[in-house]
Amino acid sequence: MSYKKLNQNDLNHLINIVGAAQVTTGDQISHDLSHDELGTVFSFPEVHIFVQDKYQISSIMKYAYQENIPVTVRGSGTGLVGACVPLFGGILMDTSQMNKIIELDKTNMVLRVEPGVLLLDIYEHVEKENLFYAPDPGEKTATIGGNISTNAGGMRAVKYGVTRDWVRGLEVVLPDGEIVKFGGKVVKNSTGYGLKDLIIGSEGTLGIIVEATLKLIPKPKMAISLLVPFKNREDAIDAAPRLMIDHVIPTAVEFFEKQSLDYSEEFLGKKIPHNDFNAYLLVTYDGNNEQSIQEDVEIASKLFIDSYHAIDVYLVDTEERRSSVWTVRGGFLEAIKSSSSEIDECDVVLPRSHIAQFLAYTRKISEDLGIRIPYFGHVGDGNLHIYFCKDDLTNEEWKEKVSHGFNLMYEKAHSFGGLVSGEHGIGYAKKEYMKQMLGEKQIKIMQGIKATFDPKNILNPGKVI
Amino acid sequence: MSYKKLNQNDLNHLINIVGAAQVTTGDQISHDLSHDELGTVFSFPEVHIFVQDKYQISSIMKYAYQENIPVTVRGSGTGLVGACVPLFGGILMDTSQMNKIIELDKTNMVLRVEPGVLLLDIYEHVEKENLFYAPDPGEKTATIGGNISTNAGGMRAVKYGVTRDWVRGLEVVLPDGEIVKFGGKVVKNSTGYGLKDLIIGSEGTLGIIVEATLKLIPKPKMAISLLVPFKNREDAIDAAPRLMIDHVIPTAVEFFEKQSLDYSEEFLGKKIPHNDFNAYLLVTYDGNNEQSIQEDVEIASKLFIDSYHAIDVYLVDTEERRSSVWTVRGGFLEAIKSSSSEIDECDVVLPRSHIAQFLAYTRKISEDLGIRIPYFGHVGDGNLHIYFCKDDLTNEEWKEKVSHGFNLMYEKAHSFGGLVSGEHGIGYAKKEYMKQMLGEKQIKIMQGIKATFDPKNILNPGKVI
Repeated sequence: MSYKKLNQNDLNHLINIVGAAQVTTGDQISHDLSHDELGTVFSFPEVHIFVQDKYQISSIMKYAYQENIPVTVRGSGTGLVGACVPLFGGILMDTSQMNKIIELDKTNMVLRVEPGVLLLDIYEHVEKENLFYAPDPGEKTATIGGNISTNAGGMRAVKYGVTRDWVRGLEVVLPDGEIVKFGGKVVKNSTGYGLKDLIIGSEGTLGIIVEATLKLIPKPKMAISLLVPFKNREDAIDAAPRLMIDHVIPTAVEFFEKQSLDYSEEFLGKKIPHNDFNAYLLVTYDGNNEQSIQEDVEIASKLFIDSYHAIDVYLVDTEERRSSVWTVRGGFLEAIKSSSSEIDECDVVLPRSHIAQFLAYTRKISEDLGIRIPYFGHVGDGNLHIYFCKDDLTNEEWKEKVSHGFNLMYEKAHSFGGLVSGEHGIGYAKKEYMKQMLGEKQIKIMQGIKATFDPKNILNPGKVI
Repeated sequence: MSYKKLNQNDLNHLINIVGAAQVTTGDQISHDLSHDELGTVFSFPEVHIFVQDKYQISSIMKYAYQENIPVTVRGSGTGLVGACVPLFGGILMDTSQMNKIIELDKTNMVLRVEPGVLLLDIYEHVEKENLFYAPDPGEKTATIGGNISTNAGGMRAVKYGVTRDWVRGLEVVLPDGEIVKFGGKVVKNSTGYGLKDLIIGSEGTLGIIVEATLKLIPKPKMAISLLVPFKNREDAIDAAPRLMIDHVIPTAVEFFEKQSLDYSEEFLGKKIPHNDFNAYLLVTYDGNNEQSIQEDVEIASKLFIDSYHAIDVYLVDTEERRSSVWTVRGGFLEAIKSSSSEIDECDVVLPRSHIAQFLAYTRKISEDLGIRIPYFGHVGDGNLHIYFCKDDLTNEEWKEKVSHGFNLMYEKAHSFGGLVSGEHGIGYAKKEYMKQMLGEKQIKIMQGIKATFDPKNILNPGKVI
């Protein structure tokens, strides 16, 4: 791919669109903007631009399209697969200042937001009105634009689904600058191909999200979490799908072992109660009726203890317990990251039935390759986060082991009916693995779709496909 | 578009694939196979083939692709926009004998089915296991393949969403015969572009669904319906979104007026209790906790009576009442159809907030054009079914009035943030209206996607775009 390098003329044109204060070039561009949260892919843009509205974005895209300049969109930069890294330089279009909540429409139960609104701001805005946006990805400082672009999942997916299920409409600037609307405030839609659903999860490669209409529901009146330690991990993992079979479907079921817990407690300098067991489930039930939740909790608790040798079932029922348990759970990724010189992540998703087998295989890979591989997982929905740690390996050894290990793991996942990414996306880092898993034909279809939206391949080139 | 006309060689080849007993040609092809349920578009195939499995489908598509023969897939033929009508002749591929339920996987809470399984058979199969497939389109003898192809909605969309929300994975034969899998038994998926969601709602134009993996949940333990007559229609319509605002979200909210009720009662020779009022809501609440449902019902009932002048709230609580009310409700379309020499349907979807205004506009159109336009609607989700009746108009007058009226109605819908189709699709009948509403750019993108999947345009040509 050969793109135009920006000259002073181009910069002047861009400054004309957004104003000089919004534009940074060359050495002025912060190193932070050359990578995302995981930091395994690095590349600087030629120019960084804070955009303010869809008209600026449209004007920039018209110009970039005409001049053949690559454009990469960035929100909070909390991604883990390099999707917001401007591999070919060009323009880094930063939407983080487009952070207005446009409308809370209670009649149609939707929230209209700009793409740069943070997830935590959405929660705050709607929950004070007793409404609920259910998707619950771990990183609350991610932008909603980023969440939609990766079809982010999160912990409450067991009961409430993923970001895709909560997006009713999108307004999008296409690579040539045209502004289009897909879906809207409507609940149903059978009007032609599902273009909204194509934008969701496309990681900024097909169009730029400039507004999203999100579905809301009434906020559940109460939620209860249970911290359940188990003697051994297999019991914990096997207990999760039994909740489904026994029809006490939880809001979330998180699995972790002592190792991740220790890392996080040490990293945060904060301890949870009952922290000296081998394996845990952290289970949440929510709803509007206390009696109904209590019934579910009782059935689940009895099941854990009678059938899966749980050591106890601890209610996470005080503000102090809630804060410590969820803070420590929320710290896993950061803690594992800080425990090693470098990490790489496998965000595999599997049918729930195959989690125990897959984690056993993961431990075997760890032993065979002589590499530390901590993990934790959303076992309620089959999505695992598995971290290869570089520790004191040389760069060469590291690359070789990661590549070899990931190939084995994705192959195994495929044989179980799993997929490369459950919620973090493909970006740059997982392209090859996706290609191997899905096969030539699906990649060719994706390339055809990309060419349809972006014939000059100027929007986030080098990502996904 | 110019396609090969089938000769004896082609027929022999097809007979070799599926066996002579599965193949019908020429005058042997029933007139029923030349149209769908609405019957506004007619065209015969050159050959009708009952297929038995994905390998037969793949072989047929390889041959059709090589020989440039158009292929149209048909399930039960219950569509309302001509999507299964073989406009260019060729092969009519009938999947109605592929009606096996492949697997009920309770651990992963999914059902794997062939495309020809009927909706009513899915309900029966899973509900006896105390499981629930929530989408509830009116036509229970539709195939699941057809439901997925139109992203069918139905009455329970208010609470449970539409077919799209219940499809976890699809196996698809592409126009060149290759068999691919999109998604699977997994709950989350961020692995590349959403190809599964592109197949959903594509009305058989991008690929042939040969297997679907459907999400299930535990069957709600109870459901209560309320029949609520109102003095005037505006009150009934306005009451529906208030349920959302007041956080007593129902499973379904159906709206109808005396006219539709009369047609259906006469057509079925069956009466509902309390049938002499102007306008009705038929509201359902379901869940697992009786107390919780009772609370919602009380709040809703009080709201209907105190704020919207409901005449009464009748519990539909005996088997006899349930049967009569839902049978009569289910008979609206058939009854309206049988009341006129020909009808055409507007399946518009709107933000809930704009239903009353839109129906007022519809009545104005009816008056202005001098044409009978009965309607009813899923007012809980903003999807209306509005029927233009030909009665004793000449063909010419009819065509002119339908075209003029539909244009006005879709224009108005667009101005309210609505879309052409809520759940019945575009097919052949609504192509021009979609084009006008979405604009050139979106149609061009859809055409690009179509060309990517089907470069020779042999799969259901002339539909959607």
